[in-house]
Amino acid sequence: MTKEELLDCHKRIQPFIHRTPVLYSQLINEIASSNIVFKCENFQKMGAFKMRGATNAIMQLTESQKEKGVVTHSSGNFAQALSLAAKSLGIKAFIVMPNNAPKVKIEAVEGYGGNITFSESTIEAREKASELIAQNTGASFIHPSNDLDVIIGNATACLELLEDVPDLDYVFAPIGGGGLIAGTALSAHFFGDDCKVIGAEPITVDDAFRSLQSGIIETNVSGETIADGLRTHLGDINFPIIQKYVQKIITVEEYEIVQAMRLIYERLKIVVEPSSAVALAAVLKEKELFKAKKIGVILSGGNVDLNYLPFEKYS
Amino acid sequence: MTKEELLDCHKRIQPFIHRTPVLYSQLINEIASSNIVFKCENFQKMGAFKMRGATNAIMQLTESQKEKGVVTHSSGNFAQALSLAAKSLGIKAFIVMPNNAPKVKIEAVEGYGGNITFSESTIEAREKASELIAQNTGASFIHPSNDLDVIIGNATACLELLEDVPDLDYVFAPIGGGGLIAGTALSAHFFGDDCKVIGAEPITVDDAFRSLQSGIIETNVSGETIADGLRTHLGDINFPIIQKYVQKIITVEEYEIVQAMRLIYERLKIVVEPSSAVALAAVLKEKELFKAKKIGVILSGGNVDLNYLPFEKYS
Repeated sequence: MTKEELLDCHKRIQPFIHRTPVLYSQLINEIASSNIVFKCENFQKMGAFKMRGATNAIMQLTESQKEKGVVTHSSGNFAQALSLAAKSLGIKAFIVMPNNAPKVKIEAVEGYGGNITFSESTIEAREKASELIAQNTGASFIHPSNDLDVIIGNATACLELLEDVPDLDYVFAPIGGGGLIAGTALSAHFFGDDCKVIGAEPITVDDAFRSLQSGIIETNVSGETIADGLRTHLGDINFPIIQKYVQKIITVEEYEIVQAMRLIYERLKIVVEPSSAVALAAVLKEKELFKAKKIGVILSGGNVDLNYLPFEKYS
Repeated sequence: MTKEELLDCHKRIQPFIHRTPVLYSQLINEIASSNIVFKCENFQKMGAFKMRGATNAIMQLTESQKEKGVVTHSSGNFAQALSLAAKSLGIKAFIVMPNNAPKVKIEAVEGYGGNITFSESTIEAREKASELIAQNTGASFIHPSNDLDVIIGNATACLELLEDVPDLDYVFAPIGGGGLIAGTALSAHFFGDDCKVIGAEPITVDDAFRSLQSGIIETNVSGETIADGLRTHLGDINFPIIQKYVQKIITVEEYEIVQAMRLIYERLKIVVEPSSAVALAAVLKEKELFKAKKIGVILSGGNVDLNYLPFEKYS
């Protein structure tokens, strides 16, 4: 992996993604006693950073692979990302979604032209359904997070952030399947000036936290969290990158996630999904450690079901 | 009133306000069959356009007036605006608030250093309480909407919008007390290229709509609306401007306001208060009239109580 590969990727996917803005709030800085800039991937096309990885993964396929389309299984954002990226690039996308996926995410995938197949919500059922589609259609399977081209694509969010704000001491990103934090870590390593990367995870699905401790990929037996994008576990491609380049993982409670999410809505006046708020919650939880530091927070996305916002429940 | 007065005002208040961004959504354009740009005053300091008028009104006081401070009565955003503008300019602000004002707005006024006096929520009670404070302290009364300096300050939002997007056919703004629409109409007149101004009002508090028909300032006998910033009626200073320069007022139902608000949250990924959504609701309601036109929509503010968002109720 080289610096040039990341820069090439950025150049390649640029026509198909937004360069998202960087925002800050004086009041949030006062609360945190540090200087925080937010990389707003909620403003990315289809509403999440996953557009970056999906676009890069498709663009790296051969022409004959592209003809047969792509397939993935995803609980939401990657499904939308692969659908829209495929549409932008003129190829077919087959999407396996759990039958309990939020309605707003199902409609979005349909809106972007993805061909949906529903399966049981277990990872096994979703993988099996994807394999079957790949066999029947010849479509290339693209994993939402454990795929090097996806990781490199995702890395461009932090790359842009460091272009805009070069002197960050820390970058925080949420950890779900590990594709965002791995990409973020690569960009911080290549483009930061001693910029450390910290992962943020709900305490109820702390598989990545435990994985870093045990040295093997841990899973979540059960574990409900409002940050529904972060329930998945790491993979064999992103885990070594995380082990090498991520300094630490901070786990946060559900109420801390909602508190951070409320700050983002009230002070930045932007819509983010709960998974995005996990990274700010981590900064605030251990704010003594980061006093007066310059911190980047990757807001991963903004695709939230407005009928089920958590504010009233946690007020 | 001249073009130069507006430009002078903009120059004067610029150090104390944000130049807010202009956003758009391809999907909203498809739904509307027109090209809509949103002037995002939800990103303004304290979260609403009212910061512009409040700042200008204070800056136009004499030094001896400034020493004694300012007083106003407001159900929310102007209270915050005058408090913050006063704080920025180093003077005192006395704020009369109705005792049923949302908690989030009371806390915000306190946060900006405003001295709050609570009164009954009738306009009479609020006016009386303000007069008493003015008598006792010598503070200058600044009306939230029926004040020429406030109107000129508010006009700078549309002025900036037309600097960024000069060829708008229409600008839409919500109508509450009339201070935003009057300022918007002045800027459209002086800086637009045959740019027409259309007001938007909840049907349940359609006092401005009726005022334009009858030629006198009408009031709302009762009338509940989710757009709580729009319950007030016009004043003798802004009404003649509205009569002269506003082409039309479109009234919208509550469910149409929430539908428009949902589009803004889901597609622009930004937080706006219901009053802001009224203007988009008006565009969508009569979209046949505005087909293929270039439309500016002033999103007036983003100060919403997150515990009482309307989405679930209207889903």
